[in-house]
Amino acid sequence: MKNVANKETLLVALGGNALLRQGEEGTIAEQFANLRLPMRQVARLSRRYRIIITHGNGPQVGNLLLQQESCAAVPKLPLEILVAQTQGQIGYMIESTLDSELAALGSGKRHLVSLISYVVVDASDPAFREPSKPVGPFYREEEAKGLPWPVRKTPKGYRRVVASPRPVTIVEKSEIRALIDMDFIVICCGGGGIPVIREGRAFHGVDAVIDKDLASARLAGEVGVEILVIATDVPGVALGYGSTGERFLDRLTVAAARRHLEQGEFPAGSMGPKVEAALQFMEGGGKRAVICGIDEIEAAAAGRAGTEVLLG
Amino acid sequence: MKNVANKETLLVALGGNALLRQGEEGTIAEQFANLRLPMRQVARLSRRYRIIITHGNGPQVGNLLLQQESCAAVPKLPLEILVAQTQGQIGYMIESTLDSELAALGSGKRHLVSLISYVVVDASDPAFREPSKPVGPFYREEEAKGLPWPVRKTPKGYRRVVASPRPVTIVEKSEIRALIDMDFIVICCGGGGIPVIREGRAFHGVDAVIDKDLASARLAGEVGVEILVIATDVPGVALGYGSTGERFLDRLTVAAARRHLEQGEFPAGSMGPKVEAALQFMEGGGKRAVICGIDEIEAAAAGRAGTEVLLG
Repeated sequence: MKNVANKETLLVALGGNALLRQGEEGTIAEQFANLRLPMRQVARLSRRYRIIITHGNGPQVGNLLLQQESCAAVPKLPLEILVAQTQGQIGYMIESTLDSELAALGSGKRHLVSLISYVVVDASDPAFREPSKPVGPFYREEEAKGLPWPVRKTPKGYRRVVASPRPVTIVEKSEIRALIDMDFIVICCGGGGIPVIREGRAFHGVDAVIDKDLASARLAGEVGVEILVIATDVPGVALGYGSTGERFLDRLTVAAARRHLEQGEFPAGSMGPKVEAALQFMEGGGKRAVICGIDEIEAAAAGRAGTEVLLG
Repeated sequence: MKNVANKETLLVALGGNALLRQGEEGTIAEQFANLRLPMRQVARLSRRYRIIITHGNGPQVGNLLLQQESCAAVPKLPLEILVAQTQGQIGYMIESTLDSELAALGSGKRHLVSLISYVVVDASDPAFREPSKPVGPFYREEEAKGLPWPVRKTPKGYRRVVASPRPVTIVEKSEIRALIDMDFIVICCGGGGIPVIREGRAFHGVDAVIDKDLASARLAGEVGVEILVIATDVPGVALGYGSTGERFLDRLTVAAARRHLEQGEFPAGSMGPKVEAALQFMEGGGKRAVICGIDEIEAAAAGRAGTEVLLG
């Protein structure tokens, strides 16, 4: 093994499709099976890099919301607690799958932890005035009227919307930095982190969800990551996505990315925050930011796949 | 702060009443409020000791089981995943409450992490042939007949029973040891740990629950803990518990404890495993094991409250 001091740190932000694929039922067996492809790549990458893994939680938190809506006998939990539950679930699934892939690779014992993470957001963030992130089950119009939260009409029905404030700081950043310094592989910031606001010297949770790619970029800046790989269900960033003129890009400069973002080229709920996260990371001194498919994490880390976001 | 090398390690195993009290509805606000009493004590103790915190999850895992029974729309999760979810939930609640209490104490930044933990059990453990641990909702007799799992009749109705195998080893033990060496406060082994069995060089989860006190004793032996405090809803170990002749003990020798256990003095589901865990810890070279009330953790760590289990 190389000297740790010479190793660069790679942060892999896993999209929801690392666990759940279109067309599958979403059983736990399927989710474990899906994780093997990204984890095999991460296991190999861990020989060259210090590793941080973050992940989404949309479908999992949606299922928990749906379950608690269906069950009057149990006190309802606030969204922050459901995010915490998904960190437990997905953190375990990623850690145990990576454990197996590391063992299969025979690269010897490597310290590996999955951390509960909470992320400070600003109580005055404008997102709290205009909740925009759809979560949980779909409702019919008449059901939606009786709900205690803001809802929004979507093509498949009404859905609850919650605030998606910007991540200000990751509470466990100094712990994560210390662990990375010791070459621990760290799984953290699941679902963008459990959202908390400061109140005096204490924190308390809020009903919100933080975008996991923006949280990953924030974390990367706070702990000193060199390479950010955002892995998702498309091979990279496209112009005219979904149209007949769709064109995937190998490279995207920060200036062009800003221009496309302003022109609404990248959808708010999906590619938009990924591009924004990559921009923030590069502008904060990152060395390489790539958005790629889940099957090309290794190639993307080496600059041979996905869309690289470049300063120049 | 004292030199870390001189600090002893204290493991506090929190019973379910650290979060949920008899007679309460069990809302999250109540659970957070209940945690302040034990966490204030742990915050103070953290000035003298390196700290590991473990915790139970019975009511929380029960609620998740009840919710998923009520909701046909979401694929059912195996018990191991529900345990992982409660580690996320309770780990976050303990960590954030302790964070606040540490800040209130003004003792400066202390590294604090909450880890997902899984614990190896033996596939040939006799517990798998005779599931005995009741979990989840109560069923009427006619409902119970149609269930796909073994059930047992209890005074309040039928309940699912699962295996409660012995903990063999904590998968993250070397990580936890490294963190304790650096004076991190570590929250881990929630709900006794996510139960896994070895299969070749990999692990996979099993439908079981591990007793959190036995897992705590195992962890204590594996990472080198000096003092084990098991905090629960009674002030210590009693002979004739609940009878008119009930007598709480200041001390209990290993020999007497073994004799009482054999005579069935301590109930299998509650005080039994606590006494067993304390015995194992002392026989494995521990310095002090105390079973105490949740309000007396500090006094118990100093040998001034609870029931101390002694070798001699």
